[in-house]
Amino acid sequence: MKPEQYLFGCAYYDEYMPSSRIDEDFKLMKDAHMNVIRIAESTWSTWEQREGEFDFSSLLNMLEKAREYSLYVIIGTPTYAFPSWLSDMCPEVLTETSSGRALYGHRQLIDITNETYRKYAERVLRKMLDIIKPYNNIIIGYQLDNETRSGGAMGKDIQKIFAQQMKEKYKGDLGAFNLEFGMDYWSNKVPSWEAFPDVRGTINGSLRAEYKAFLRDVISEFHAWLKGIIDEYRTPSQFITHNFDFSWVGYSFGMQPEVNQAQAAVSCDIAGVDIYHPTQESLTGAEIAMGGAIGRSLKKDNYLVLETEAQGRPSWTPFPGQLTLQALSHISSGAGSVMYWHWHSIHNSYETYWKGILSHNLKPNKPYYELSEFGKFMEEHQVDLAYLNKTSDVAMLLDNRSLTGIDEFPLNGEEAYKGDSEYDYNHMMRRWFDACYRMNIETDFVYAEDDLSSYKVLIVPALYSASEATISKLREFVNNGGHLILTPKCLFSNEHLKVYHDDQPHGFTDLTGATYDQFTIPQSVGFKGSLHLTGKAEGIIEFYSPLSSDGASVLSSYDHPYWGEYAAVLRKGTVTTVGCILDEHDTSEVLSDVLANAGINIPAASFPVIVKKGINRKGESVTFIFNYSMEPADYVITNDCKDLMTGDACKEGARITLSPWGYKIYLGT
Amino acid sequence: MKPEQYLFGCAYYDEYMPSSRIDEDFKLMKDAHMNVIRIAESTWSTWEQREGEFDFSSLLNMLEKAREYSLYVIIGTPTYAFPSWLSDMCPEVLTETSSGRALYGHRQLIDITNETYRKYAERVLRKMLDIIKPYNNIIIGYQLDNETRSGGAMGKDIQKIFAQQMKEKYKGDLGAFNLEFGMDYWSNKVPSWEAFPDVRGTINGSLRAEYKAFLRDVISEFHAWLKGIIDEYRTPSQFITHNFDFSWVGYSFGMQPEVNQAQAAVSCDIAGVDIYHPTQESLTGAEIAMGGAIGRSLKKDNYLVLETEAQGRPSWTPFPGQLTLQALSHISSGAGSVMYWHWHSIHNSYETYWKGILSHNLKPNKPYYELSEFGKFMEEHQVDLAYLNKTSDVAMLLDNRSLTGIDEFPLNGEEAYKGDSEYDYNHMMRRWFDACYRMNIETDFVYAEDDLSSYKVLIVPALYSASEATISKLREFVNNGGHLILTPKCLFSNEHLKVYHDDQPHGFTDLTGATYDQFTIPQSVGFKGSLHLTGKAEGIIEFYSPLSSDGASVLSSYDHPYWGEYAAVLRKGTVTTVGCILDEHDTSEVLSDVLANAGINIPAASFPVIVKKGINRKGESVTFIFNYSMEPADYVITNDCKDLMTGDACKEGARITLSPWGYKIYLGT
Amino acid sequence: MKPEQYLFGCAYYDEYMPSSRIDEDFKLMKDAHMNVIRIAESTWSTWEQREGEFDFSSLLNMLEKAREYSLYVIIGTPTYAFPSWLSDMCPEVLTETSSGRALYGHRQLIDITNETYRKYAERVLRKMLDIIKPYNNIIIGYQLDNETRSGGAMGKDIQKIFAQQMKEKYKGDLGAFNLEFGMDYWSNKVPSWEAFPDVRGTINGSLRAEYKAFLRDVISEFHAWLKGIIDEYRTPSQFITHNFDFSWVGYSFGMQPEVNQAQAAVSCDIAGVDIYHPTQESLTGAEIAMGGAIGRSLKKDNYLVLETEAQGRPSWTPFPGQLTLQALSHISSGAGSVMYWHWHSIHNSYETYWKGILSHNLKPNKPYYELSEFGKFMEEHQVDLAYLNKTSDVAMLLDNRSLTGIDEFPLNGEEAYKGDSEYDYNHMMRRWFDACYRMNIETDFVYAEDDLSSYKVLIVPALYSASEATISKLREFVNNGGHLILTPKCLFSNEHLKVYHDDQPHGFTDLTGATYDQFTIPQSVGFKGSLHLTGKAEGIIEFYSPLSSDGASVLSSYDHPYWGEYAAVLRKGTVTTVGCILDEHDTSEVLSDVLANAGINIPAASFPVIVKKGINRKGESVTFIFNYSMEPADYVITNDCKDLMTGDACKEGARITLSPWGYKIYLGT
Repeated sequence: MKPEQYLFGCAYYDEYMPSSRIDEDFKLMKDAHMNVIRIAESTWSTWEQREGEFDFSSLLNMLEKAREYSLYVIIGTPTYAFPSWLSDMCPEVLTETSSGRALYGHRQLIDITNETYRKYAERVLRKMLDIIKPYNNIIIGYQLDNETRSGGAMGKDIQKIFAQQMKEKYKGDLGAFNLEFGMDYWSNKVPSWEAFPDVRGTINGSLRAEYKAFLRDVISEFHAWLKGIIDEYRTPSQFITHNFDFSWVGYSFGMQPEVNQAQAAVSCDIAGVDIYHPTQESLTGAEIAMGGAIGRSLKKDNYLVLETEAQGRPSWTPFPGQLTLQALSHISSGAGSVMYWHWHSIHNSYETYWKGILSHNLKPNKPYYELSEFGKFMEEHQVDLAYLNKTSDVAMLLDNRSLTGIDEFPLNGEEAYKGDSEYDYNHMMRRWFDACYRMNIETDFVYAEDDLSSYKVLIVPALYSASEATISKLREFVNNGGHLILTPKCLFSNEHLKVYHDDQPHGFTDLTGATYDQFTIPQSVGFKGSLHLTGKAEGIIEFYSPLSSDGASVLSSYDHPYWGEYAAVLRKGTVTTVGCILDEHDTSEVLSDVLANAGINIPAASFPVIVKKGINRKGESVTFIFNYSMEPADYVITNDCKDLMTGDACKEGARITLSPWGYKIYLGT
Repeated sequence: MKPEQYLFGCAYYDEYMPSSRIDEDFKLMKDAHMNVIRIAESTWSTWEQREGEFDFSSLLNMLEKAREYSLYVIIGTPTYAFPSWLSDMCPEVLTETSSGRALYGHRQLIDITNETYRKYAERVLRKMLDIIKPYNNIIIGYQLDNETRSGGAMGKDIQKIFAQQMKEKYKGDLGAFNLEFGMDYWSNKVPSWEAFPDVRGTINGSLRAEYKAFLRDVISEFHAWLKGIIDEYRTPSQFITHNFDFSWVGYSFGMQPEVNQAQAAVSCDIAGVDIYHPTQESLTGAEIAMGGAIGRSLKKDNYLVLETEAQGRPSWTPFPGQLTLQALSHISSGAGSVMYWHWHSIHNSYETYWKGILSHNLKPNKPYYELSEFGKFMEEHQVDLAYLNKTSDVAMLLDNRSLTGIDEFPLNGEEAYKGDSEYDYNHMMRRWFDACYRMNIETDFVYAEDDLSSYKVLIVPALYSASEATISKLREFVNNGGHLILTPKCLFSNEHLKVYHDDQPHGFTDLTGATYDQFTIPQSVGFKGSLHLTGKAEGIIEFYSPLSSDGASVLSSYDHPYWGEYAAVLRKGTVTTVGCILDEHDTSEVLSDVLANAGINIPAASFPVIVKKGINRKGESVTFIFNYSMEPADYVITNDCKDLMTGDACKEGARITLSPWGYKIYLGT
Repeated sequence: MKPEQYLFGCAYYDEYMPSSRIDEDFKLMKDAHMNVIRIAESTWSTWEQREGEFDFSSLLNMLEKAREYSLYVIIGTPTYAFPSWLSDMCPEVLTETSSGRALYGHRQLIDITNETYRKYAERVLRKMLDIIKPYNNIIIGYQLDNETRSGGAMGKDIQKIFAQQMKEKYKGDLGAFNLEFGMDYWSNKVPSWEAFPDVRGTINGSLRAEYKAFLRDVISEFHAWLKGIIDEYRTPSQFITHNFDFSWVGYSFGMQPEVNQAQAAVSCDIAGVDIYHPTQESLTGAEIAMGGAIGRSLKKDNYLVLETEAQGRPSWTPFPGQLTLQALSHISSGAGSVMYWHWHSIHNSYETYWKGILSHNLKPNKPYYELSEFGKFMEEHQVDLAYLNKTSDVAMLLDNRSLTGIDEFPLNGEEAYKGDSEYDYNHMMRRWFDACYRMNIETDFVYAEDDLSSYKVLIVPALYSASEATISKLREFVNNGGHLILTPKCLFSNEHLKVYHDDQPHGFTDLTGATYDQFTIPQSVGFKGSLHLTGKAEGIIEFYSPLSSDGASVLSSYDHPYWGEYAAVLRKGTVTTVGCILDEHDTSEVLSDVLANAGINIPAASFPVIVKKGINRKGESVTFIFNYSMEPADYVITNDCKDLMTGDACKEGARITLSPWGYKIYLGT
């Protein structure tokens, strides 16, 4: 079952400490109104330093003390890092990629399908689950692994599993597979299922993408396996969660490419996330909103923030007030918890400069005192604020196969992306998400298999890989009156990245009322037309023209001697088609136009004033007003309501002033 | 024998298609006045999906249909990509470099000296040649492999061949080898021919360069081997060609470093090339002229354009008119064909965004219709325009050992270049080629072994590696009255990159009337002197001074407090020596001065108006005028002539206007 | 014993020559007043081309000729490059890193702990030492190896030695090791000394740093081993030296990270250095001063310049006069020799564009003639100028573990540095060294184990890793009245990079009168306060505040809305604490303030006029005035003295003018 407690706390690693100081630490936590610790993930070598020699004494001590100080505990499985004796015993535990076999040391370089790994992981996990049973009253939940990865495993054993799954998927029809994946190209035709070629060297983007999808499936299966074991031990009141993370550009940025999170979350009772973001002048709250929306999307419910930064990296040291602003921003997105990574800064090894709440001197400091204030406030108001019910008229469709598709086949036609790129899937997605965020249009994320019927507007960013079923789903949404924004690169290929060989966007030209068969990279190309687009086309221009019969209206076209005949933004009925990447202003411009058409009210306030809403467990509507800036900001009350902090009534139309990095919370709006 | 037909067509890959549509495609080709397809290269896994199981049905079907639609066929050998079962059977087929054994997947990673590869390649090739005999009337020629590479093969087997060849070259005299290659340095002295050290780790630039030369020879030998097999099957009227490509900087740029093309072309009846280049605002025609001149240089004759872009990469989508301009530019360089890579865009794998004539929807589109117009025009005028006879007063000397030399020993003295660099051999060569091109001085390329007697001016770019024989050749050219431009880095080392240990430029100081023994990298150094040089010295300054007796005249020297005493440009008799890299303007300035001295007329028109000439098969002189710009351009007729398109007579002195990306063709000029 | 002769000469490689020309070369050297050659290092494959076949004839010939021409000889051991037959016989001789086994070819890729290497190296060395005995009267010294490296060796054998040493260091207490190194983190706990994990993959910065320290120790042990062998052969008058080099940023920049030079120099009678630096407009003399100060630091005595550039790289071709300026700059730092790498430019292989005195044509040239003049001058004045005794009031503390610490834990908290970085240890050190240099404050370098009592001011750059013993040493310095400048990142971790878990700077807060527990990366943060700081804080801001009782005075704080409460520069007593990296001006500003407080006179002249002083072997004080600029520069004589070149008396207050790149030398100042 999912948790009901509002949770405030942090990850705690007694085993990393220069010397044990649990009493001192737990007392400080309690003083700060914390009520939960997250422990035990990545501790295998502490519980089992040598094969078969188990020592859970430090774990039991932590649990004993947690009971003493009345702290809840979330127990992580000790599986995501592993002891060196395991890979000494069985080197195949380490992932093998095109760069060769990984060296022992780093986390997440495990082939999680490896049988030896599974055997020893299960043994230590069962031992641990068994030994901690006496503490079931304080252990409120379990975390499956942590930020699970496949490690890009491409060794022979796991590739055999993949080849077998492909054989099953194609029911043994090798010809169908070769045709669908275009294996004839450059003589890559697969001779037999048994002689499936090593994926490590392939130049076939469809095949590499399929393997990446397989690696995502492997993670979901691993989670299910872990859940199965925990289920044998847990009590009905203990929940299962996982710490889902995001794509990374030096901070949490977008959808995690390596995990099919909605699928993996099937093994969870409640989704957990970890969100890291810039602070100081660069704090916007966008990553908190993005990560929260993904968190809500996984179980269509509230979520836990299992990790977020206290001090974090040197450049993230927060300005006064920012920690409070951040924490309330999580709460306002529907989080049931705010938990920090981590309590104490680490004195050795690798993440020494990813600081926790306490600095290396382990004394109360400015972050601690600010969080203590927040802790006190939330302790009083947890029923008012935690686990908010969130709804939205606007959704964005996320798709991992499309993300891979854009990685394999970048907009500029060059070689596959290696990592972050200005026009990769997540950057294109963030253009639209951020436009919504800054306009105070709260959005949900949805997946192709979700029910879309409750939304008025669906934004479809870069859905490069779209199966016929997905296209039908989108058609149904439109046919039911939904407003749809189709962005560049949509519906271009099928689920195997095989480009559709009819008119683009595939299966949708009657709804777009427009098509194209050429595209290019824009070089300083502006716009003309009825929309007030002021920037330049970016990344790609799709040469859209309205169909000659029953065609779309052109809202905006390109200002260019040769491309001037093509449409940048078109509309037919409730479908708005955008043929290029727009800058921040122009994205908002198109969005405003669509929202107006869909009858959605656009709030007067906009970034840096951020408005977030929800319904609390008392059934009251709650509105958070945040000021994400160094300057004071004004806000006009939109409904009669009550100030949560002061209890004062506020009148519609009243002008309030938010202090820098300040906030207000109103009930009954 | 070499072909006589003008050829217009494209590469065609029935095996890559989502479904077979040959009839539809061939009909569209015929409608566009195309007359040839190029097929079968890189198809091994289609003809022999499993070892020994041959299936040429799709090839035979293509040939049958080609006969039906009266399309000529050029058959490529299916050797340049290979099936995975071959490397499964014999991993040594895959190249091994200092990064280890290649993984199966990519093309051109074959050790083409590998005996197993040769055995199976020969078998499938003979099977194919045998089975296609019934179509000899439509098969006009064969293509040896495709853009053949050695894959940088450095495995043990191929290195043994290299060591054996070195032993033979030095007639077993190990001491002579060690001395010539300077192997004492850092204790690298080779102990015996049998214990020749692994070239993969060598720090000896001479040795690495020798190995690269060996890898070029391997390609020539491979071509001869393929030719030998084809010779057993072909009819007297069928030609042999190869698809030669160029150095690559995102497009075709200069001499291909990995192939000794003139040597490899010995196995061809006619040279073929593939030329890719930027379009849109960046279309200049320079790469078409450069590639064409190299094409002509290989057999001292006309050449085929076997591949060029239709749509190509996303950034190359052509402006209206550019495809026609490009095609006629190939023709004006002496091409006998214009063939596109490729007919249809590919829906999977790797080159999905290297688009063909048709887009992914496989329907007629703007490029198709423009090319159809061109096809119709050329069908009428092929005798007037194809296979032009080209002659030139100016030649440039190309040398692959010098290219390697500059790669191994870059101008700045830093580590060997890895790939493209601002001052590598091809960039230095292009400075002079482009200056000629923009001044409408058509140039030939020549090699050290060629007859130079027909040229008035020889430009020698960066001939870093020059044997005594080559130096004698250059001396003879000068002594016969030829005008020679000697650029920086010339004649510095011998054919093994051993720097000459006497005065620079070696064996030439009597002709240059100048020498130097120091050089440096210029930092904002301008010029003074009689030439109107306005830019800055780039890349290197060689500290040239005239010899005290019978010395050169200084045309230009450096504007610098300490280097001011050194000469930038000198002349003695017909030898002009340039001691630094000049910018575009200054290169043209020196060039103009030399051309004037050589009595060569410099056309009034210059880029973006490009003038190209030749004698057609009727013996008429043909002049093409191209406008490589977005703006209309004027041109003044230089001789009474006839407009090919209108048939109108044109008078000398008449001013015509070319439309943007437009052209004119005149006969009898 | 250490040498007494002033030495002027070069490295000579007869074996690299296109043909032998010893007579011609040695005559030219003598004409240039040279008196020494350095030979035989990296010649193993020449002396022993095949295993067991020795041929020292070219060595003996060089010695014979050296005797004939009265040239001293320094003999290098032929150990730093090795013949290919050795690694063919025993591949383990080649280093193995996380990238795999090195390929044969490059120097310094030897596992110098390898027994086979040691066995064969000893054999060839003993053979050589034995055979050269007849020349002991001209062989003045031996050089141990050359720029010795460990090659980053991480093979199994050497890692076993490391694990064994760790076991001994911790007296077998595995728990103590695991705790000290924080091995619990990410399950890296070591199970047993026997199953010590492969260091190649570790993510533990403490462990990797310890391994790097071990590799430094390996070099010292190797030197001791070589010395032991030579000791059996050498005469009492023959010295032992080594050619120590520096960290490299395209030129010599700072402390060499891979060698514990003071420890390695225990095996030397006199330290040798090689210093390379930019010239032309970029010649400042700073690297010569830095390298010389390190040279003096190793034996607390004079040092030899065993290598410096004549022409060097293409961009270093010297302006007229610069070679003389450079040579005298070495002498003014206390050098006993100026020796060039190398006599002749090399015609093959790898360092072909690292030119010697002679260019490739091997004829006297401008550098040769300029050095001949210098040679003549020094021959007359060697007793006046060579082997100067240098003293200083100011010292800077160098520490290799701290350098590694900053590499492992960069200021920005990102991944470990790979090579050069703007804010690495040496760059932070150079900020302070260069400030001193430009203000004409000559500085010594010292190490934690040195006696500090003679210094008035100690600058401590980035002493990230400081043992309790080192901290005590610094406390003692302060308590004895010394002025100390504590810069950012000081005293943060112990000798194993374990961050101290009490108040920063550890063990020093009573002396700083200030502490901090947070820090961040500054974004355009200026200063306010009594010091005239005009720039921006760089790299890091440590949030220093004075202690509430007995706290420091704040000299400067930050100009920032939130960080304004923190101190940038504080002072308590004689301790000045700086919390951020300062630019050149601001570093000088703080330095001036400290020097003034310490009663040290700051010279009126500053860069580009550089003043360097020493006491010659006659007991006279000598002052060099250098003009490091393209423009003439004025200098005012500070004491009555005598011009060494003219013999004229000079009066205090007289104004002299230095020509561009010119110099003056005064006695008796």
